[in-house]
Amino acid sequence: MVEWVDKEKVFKDPVHDYIYVKDRLIWDLINTRAFQRLRRIRQLGTSFLTFHGAEHSRFTHSLGTYETMRKVLSHFDRNFGWPGDERVRMLALCAALLHDIGHGPFSHTIESVFPFHHETWTQRILIEDPEVNDILKRVDDAFALDVASVIAKKSKYPLVVKLISSQLDVDRMDYLLRDALNTGVTYGTFELERLIRIMRPHGDDVVVKKSGMKTVEQYILARYFMYSQVYLHPVTVGSDVLLRHVVSRAQKLWERNEDLFLPDELKPFFSGEEITVKEYLELDESVMTYTLQRWMRAQDPILRDLADRLTNRRLFGSVDTRALKEVERETIAEMFRSHGVDPDYYLSFQTATTDGYHMYMQGINLIDEQGRQLDDISKHSALVRSLVPESKFRIFCPKEVLRGEGNYKPIRGWLDALRD
Amino acid sequence: MVEWVDKEKVFKDPVHDYIYVKDRLIWDLINTRAFQRLRRIRQLGTSFLTFHGAEHSRFTHSLGTYETMRKVLSHFDRNFGWPGDERVRMLALCAALLHDIGHGPFSHTIESVFPFHHETWTQRILIEDPEVNDILKRVDDAFALDVASVIAKKSKYPLVVKLISSQLDVDRMDYLLRDALNTGVTYGTFELERLIRIMRPHGDDVVVKKSGMKTVEQYILARYFMYSQVYLHPVTVGSDVLLRHVVSRAQKLWERNEDLFLPDELKPFFSGEEITVKEYLELDESVMTYTLQRWMRAQDPILRDLADRLTNRRLFGSVDTRALKEVERETIAEMFRSHGVDPDYYLSFQTATTDGYHMYMQGINLIDEQGRQLDDISKHSALVRSLVPESKFRIFCPKEVLRGEGNYKPIRGWLDALRD
Amino acid sequence: MVEWVDKEKVFKDPVHDYIYVKDRLIWDLINTRAFQRLRRIRQLGTSFLTFHGAEHSRFTHSLGTYETMRKVLSHFDRNFGWPGDERVRMLALCAALLHDIGHGPFSHTIESVFPFHHETWTQRILIEDPEVNDILKRVDDAFALDVASVIAKKSKYPLVVKLISSQLDVDRMDYLLRDALNTGVTYGTFELERLIRIMRPHGDDVVVKKSGMKTVEQYILARYFMYSQVYLHPVTVGSDVLLRHVVSRAQKLWERNEDLFLPDELKPFFSGEEITVKEYLELDESVMTYTLQRWMRAQDPILRDLADRLTNRRLFGSVDTRALKEVERETIAEMFRSHGVDPDYYLSFQTATTDGYHMYMQGINLIDEQGRQLDDISKHSALVRSLVPESKFRIFCPKEVLRGEGNYKPIRGWLDALRD
Amino acid sequence: MVEWVDKEKVFKDPVHDYIYVKDRLIWDLINTRAFQRLRRIRQLGTSFLTFHGAEHSRFTHSLGTYETMRKVLSHFDRNFGWPGDERVRMLALCAALLHDIGHGPFSHTIESVFPFHHETWTQRILIEDPEVNDILKRVDDAFALDVASVIAKKSKYPLVVKLISSQLDVDRMDYLLRDALNTGVTYGTFELERLIRIMRPHGDDVVVKKSGMKTVEQYILARYFMYSQVYLHPVTVGSDVLLRHVVSRAQKLWERNEDLFLPDELKPFFSGEEITVKEYLELDESVMTYTLQRWMRAQDPILRDLADRLTNRRLFGSVDTRALKEVERETIAEMFRSHGVDPDYYLSFQTATTDGYHMYMQGINLIDEQGRQLDDISKHSALVRSLVPESKFRIFCPKEVLRGEGNYKPIRGWLDALRD
Repeated sequence: MVEWVDKEKVFKDPVHDYIYVKDRLIWDLINTRAFQRLRRIRQLGTSFLTFHGAEHSRFTHSLGTYETMRKVLSHFDRNFGWPGDERVRMLALCAALLHDIGHGPFSHTIESVFPFHHETWTQRILIEDPEVNDILKRVDDAFALDVASVIAKKSKYPLVVKLISSQLDVDRMDYLLRDALNTGVTYGTFELERLIRIMRPHGDDVVVKKSGMKTVEQYILARYFMYSQVYLHPVTVGSDVLLRHVVSRAQKLWERNEDLFLPDELKPFFSGEEITVKEYLELDESVMTYTLQRWMRAQDPILRDLADRLTNRRLFGSVDTRALKEVERETIAEMFRSHGVDPDYYLSFQTATTDGYHMYMQGINLIDEQGRQLDDISKHSALVRSLVPESKFRIFCPKEVLRGEGNYKPIRGWLDALRD
Repeated sequence: MVEWVDKEKVFKDPVHDYIYVKDRLIWDLINTRAFQRLRRIRQLGTSFLTFHGAEHSRFTHSLGTYETMRKVLSHFDRNFGWPGDERVRMLALCAALLHDIGHGPFSHTIESVFPFHHETWTQRILIEDPEVNDILKRVDDAFALDVASVIAKKSKYPLVVKLISSQLDVDRMDYLLRDALNTGVTYGTFELERLIRIMRPHGDDVVVKKSGMKTVEQYILARYFMYSQVYLHPVTVGSDVLLRHVVSRAQKLWERNEDLFLPDELKPFFSGEEITVKEYLELDESVMTYTLQRWMRAQDPILRDLADRLTNRRLFGSVDTRALKEVERETIAEMFRSHGVDPDYYLSFQTATTDGYHMYMQGINLIDEQGRQLDDISKHSALVRSLVPESKFRIFCPKEVLRGEGNYKPIRGWLDALRD
Repeated sequence: MVEWVDKEKVFKDPVHDYIYVKDRLIWDLINTRAFQRLRRIRQLGTSFLTFHGAEHSRFTHSLGTYETMRKVLSHFDRNFGWPGDERVRMLALCAALLHDIGHGPFSHTIESVFPFHHETWTQRILIEDPEVNDILKRVDDAFALDVASVIAKKSKYPLVVKLISSQLDVDRMDYLLRDALNTGVTYGTFELERLIRIMRPHGDDVVVKKSGMKTVEQYILARYFMYSQVYLHPVTVGSDVLLRHVVSRAQKLWERNEDLFLPDELKPFFSGEEITVKEYLELDESVMTYTLQRWMRAQDPILRDLADRLTNRRLFGSVDTRALKEVERETIAEMFRSHGVDPDYYLSFQTATTDGYHMYMQGINLIDEQGRQLDDISKHSALVRSLVPESKFRIFCPKEVLRGEGNYKPIRGWLDALRD
Repeated sequence: MVEWVDKEKVFKDPVHDYIYVKDRLIWDLINTRAFQRLRRIRQLGTSFLTFHGAEHSRFTHSLGTYETMRKVLSHFDRNFGWPGDERVRMLALCAALLHDIGHGPFSHTIESVFPFHHETWTQRILIEDPEVNDILKRVDDAFALDVASVIAKKSKYPLVVKLISSQLDVDRMDYLLRDALNTGVTYGTFELERLIRIMRPHGDDVVVKKSGMKTVEQYILARYFMYSQVYLHPVTVGSDVLLRHVVSRAQKLWERNEDLFLPDELKPFFSGEEITVKEYLELDESVMTYTLQRWMRAQDPILRDLADRLTNRRLFGSVDTRALKEVERETIAEMFRSHGVDPDYYLSFQTATTDGYHMYMQGINLIDEQGRQLDDISKHSALVRSLVPESKFRIFCPKEVLRGEGNYKPIRGWLDALRD
């Protein structure tokens, strides 16, 4: 069923040193147009405006997720004889490699504006993209659907699902290390090899030995720190606000039939029609970035200004506030309006909630030395229990308003009064 | 003259950990549109097709070059009292920061096709871009020109020139480490802190203590290895060939007035008119990448095919050959033609010459313990002398031709006979 | 007052790359016999038996602590103008460099057996060792005493004390990174440069900006992980038990006037007489290690066996138990005795308590953007609050007993019943 | 034949992250007294006096050599099916693990004084140490001898010999990386994983693909730089001189029957009698270091002074000279004598010769893509050819003499005249 490539192939990788490929199926999937497209989608969206090194793409992360899965399976095979079945092995590798194939440009940021739910698109691409689907079908007719079910977390292979998307999955393992390396921080560091070593298959579950609990804590905290220090950095959140505002301004102009540069690739997203997989795959960050450049020369002063701010890093600033009531938000918006600043595009109330440890069905279970299943890690670790999601409230708007320049002075006074 | 920013600012950097900025002038230059544009130009052009991690931009390298200069000046100041003059310090920092501001997208690759000589553009931008020029003028009226003279290597501050572009300059120091980190190789590793420590101002020259000669050798070899293993990797050279062929095919169609998607930003480059700084700065990699995507759907089958090959990594393969005479090249081209393959777009003869150590005026001079100037390092190091440029000859063409698929079998036979 | 060395000197260091020395006083202190002796005392005692890389000495850590202090002072000086006073700067540097000079071999392990309270000895050496004292006196007559007071945490320079020994001190910063590097784990990793950047002098206190709280959390957790994963590793605790048992067996034989190899350097410690600084400094790990080798050939079978076990890594094993009452411990000891195993030397009940975050007077205080002192970090961080000390109870004894070999089978049954 | 340990065991390692052991034979060899003794012998002798981090032992390096061999064999097995034979695999692993088991304390330094030829001792220990020999015999009666033959480079398994000691062996691969890490330099860095990947068995030889030649160059240069920058550092060479002088002074006193502290372990080495394996294994660095401490309090002023200099790092300084004739050396010695400095103990002429690349039988052969053996790498690489051994001549003596302090002024004048 699974052909080997003529010889073991490798990719040089800054995180894993080498990524090893011995299966032709994997090799061919990497070479599909849909997968190569991930080179044109940054892993961390607008984060490069905060951490200049965060320029890496989803392509590199997808390869790294595959490699991490390969390592986990090798450990399982060496030490527990799982999976004996080549098809399950291939299923796990393909799901790891392709788990992000449905991402669009800046998708985490603009999925509220565009129909960008990436997991749905991933499933559709596996089935509907002829190039990808043909390769997957080589295993058997049901294989593409089986990979899609793993992505959808509805698989009859719950252990594979667990390895791909849970509190302890290969996706996170790779992105924490990769994002840390590229941003230049150590917050995402953890003991990858040891973490893999303490994992073991246990029925439908992947569990860890209680003696390795601290290593799991280190890994959970890597995520905690990356969220608070990198992913939810206020400068990045402010860039995301700006990006959403640019797009919604353009949509407004489009609805009003005003003069607007709009490349063919974006039209289906603006028109609200059903989007095909083919159309979806034509959109990438180069289209978005190019469009933003053009909008810097738009007639509409708001679109022009917002595009310029985002492209040239004149980003919004922020004030930490207490939680605000709807009526308070209205009052502030009104104040902006009365000072000639359109709150629809120049004001945003953001709640950044750090992601804690969630137990539900995909928690991390411990077992003891005798192989008896104990409880979820949160029952045993005060540290993990302390990781309850925390919310921060922030107002974003242009820095000149925050600084109270010119006639914005009264606004600044108001904002200062709301500070947390 | 030189204002400090309110407080020391930092950028988190994967190579230097932190990049320190205390001068408002530097801060403001970083925030210009012309400098922010460098985020949209990759440091290593098409190399990401060979080393997937090579996705970093000239923006990050420019910051790193500045930081390296800052470290060198701090060492010079602590240990030799140079430069006493704040203006010279600022000159060196600005030249380091801005030395690549004139780079265009894939400029090393397509400077033969487009008027992309980046050092000329750098100088023009310093003088003609109002935003950049206004900031530089804050020092004094002559300052922008002085920075440009450093870039042009015609400065009355030869020591600053030496620090910016010579065999031992801050530009190389940063890019070797940065490119190594991002590609995931160790070839570019060297002892940065020690290299800086053994450097010293000596009249108009920057020299090194003879006792530190091995550290200089290590640094020179880092460059040697990066050239042979990364910069001149045949897969990258083949990608560059493809890129040049796509562009020249498009130019041919444009000359013939055939139907061709061409964004406004590229028109001046195709029309051959004089290009203004404003026009130049509007071109970046997002324009090029977007255009390539559009060309994948062009009417012309050759343009469509080449754009698809480049975008989706169906790259050319290569054969190492002996040096070929013009008449031999012609014969091969004719053979391609007779098999229905247009050699103008599907065949390329490339000579990759590794850059050795060049002594000329910008060599590296040693001094002894007593501070007496000795000779150029090549006089003292057999290792350095061994680094004479080496040329490799290669033929690039589609892999299906190389493999002799279908009716290409005879071609393959011919090519095999030329192998080195 | 403070002479510079002729030129800036450096030490190459695996943690900090370079350690910079520009003061002759520091240079001369490093070259004293008392300081050089720290090369012969391992930083982590018996930990090398668990983590083979943990072979580094207190010498390297002491240099690293000095360098960390130098960095903190440079940051304070650049950004807050503290300390203006050269004498205080030198006080801080000397205290950092010399803070561990009073350590004896395996002192954390056998301070219960020998009079090894290292902080007391550090103070005595500063005053009583003529070589060290003469150098310190060069500043002024009160200087040596002032350094000693900093070590004693009774200084009139509370801010210096805080930098040397508190929850946020340069000692920990260096040892976490150094121990992590040498053991090969990432648990001790944290953002050193950023941690330093967010520290600031605030009256007599060193505080951190609230916006940097997560970086402090990362640092506090580095310690938490190093304690649980490295410092309190059961194999190390078991080695320490063995070391104490060897020494106490030798003391017993000495008291009984039995035949015993005992080098001159150890005699004062066995005889219980007052020990002079000169005598104290003659003891180092080479003496101890050599003595252990000799004891491997002792007449007494228990001493011989224990020394062999420790030297050749036939270490005790352990069982995690619930907390045991005194009477239960007695019963177990009795059982050992009845099976021919002397519980005084072959059984040990250990409580390993992870060190949490302690607030008391040396906690970490936050300030807000406006420079107003907020509260202790534990008031703001659920993560920090979760770090309450945890106790683990373990029984240590020979592995053959644990495995129930030979006639030890009944013991094993008993021990299994106590497992936690 | 080869039992597995119950489960895969690991050692945490700063160079390889994890060292994997699955064979009980390997596990048991690690736990022998002879192997554990390597913990008490530093890998780099007196180098820690130059690079304070160089405190690592031959134990860690021996584990690392084993792990490197394990990786090479895994690559050979995955890609070339070599060795099919479990016995050969075990032979290669055992030889890698045990290759340094015969090292004595500071053996490279004092093998001229003591009978310390470590390769001979390694072979003897494999055969004569009952504990080691019994474990090896478990494979079969001939096995211990076979391992010894590999060490002696006279094996009927030339490929295993090649992997253990040649220009491209696992010993060097580990020590370059490990010594670099511990000293804190990058000089020893090279692409380990890639180097392994390009190696392949070829008859009795291990060869590399020509396309990987630059990676081999990088590895050869790592050694070149480590020799010149670390292993032959003049401060280390001076420490070695001092060590040899201390020992020869002690021997002189012993011959003269003068009062001398001499531990039992050293007596056989002084008396010149035949030394047994048992006696040999009783000597380690703790004995030497302890003895040096005692000699600091010797009656003989020369022994006392030399031991103090070495222990407390009052090392000899050096002058680089031209090559000196015997008669010139005599004149200098006489001058020392006439100024009251005994040249036998306070003067040394040293020639440090960097080790180049040696082709002879253990050179590195290349093969081309078609698997045809080409020539030795030096035929193809100008870089490698440039690495001819270079000699440096240096005079070592006390720094006070070099500085011309007191009545040494005339000596200084003379030495200055000899400077290179």
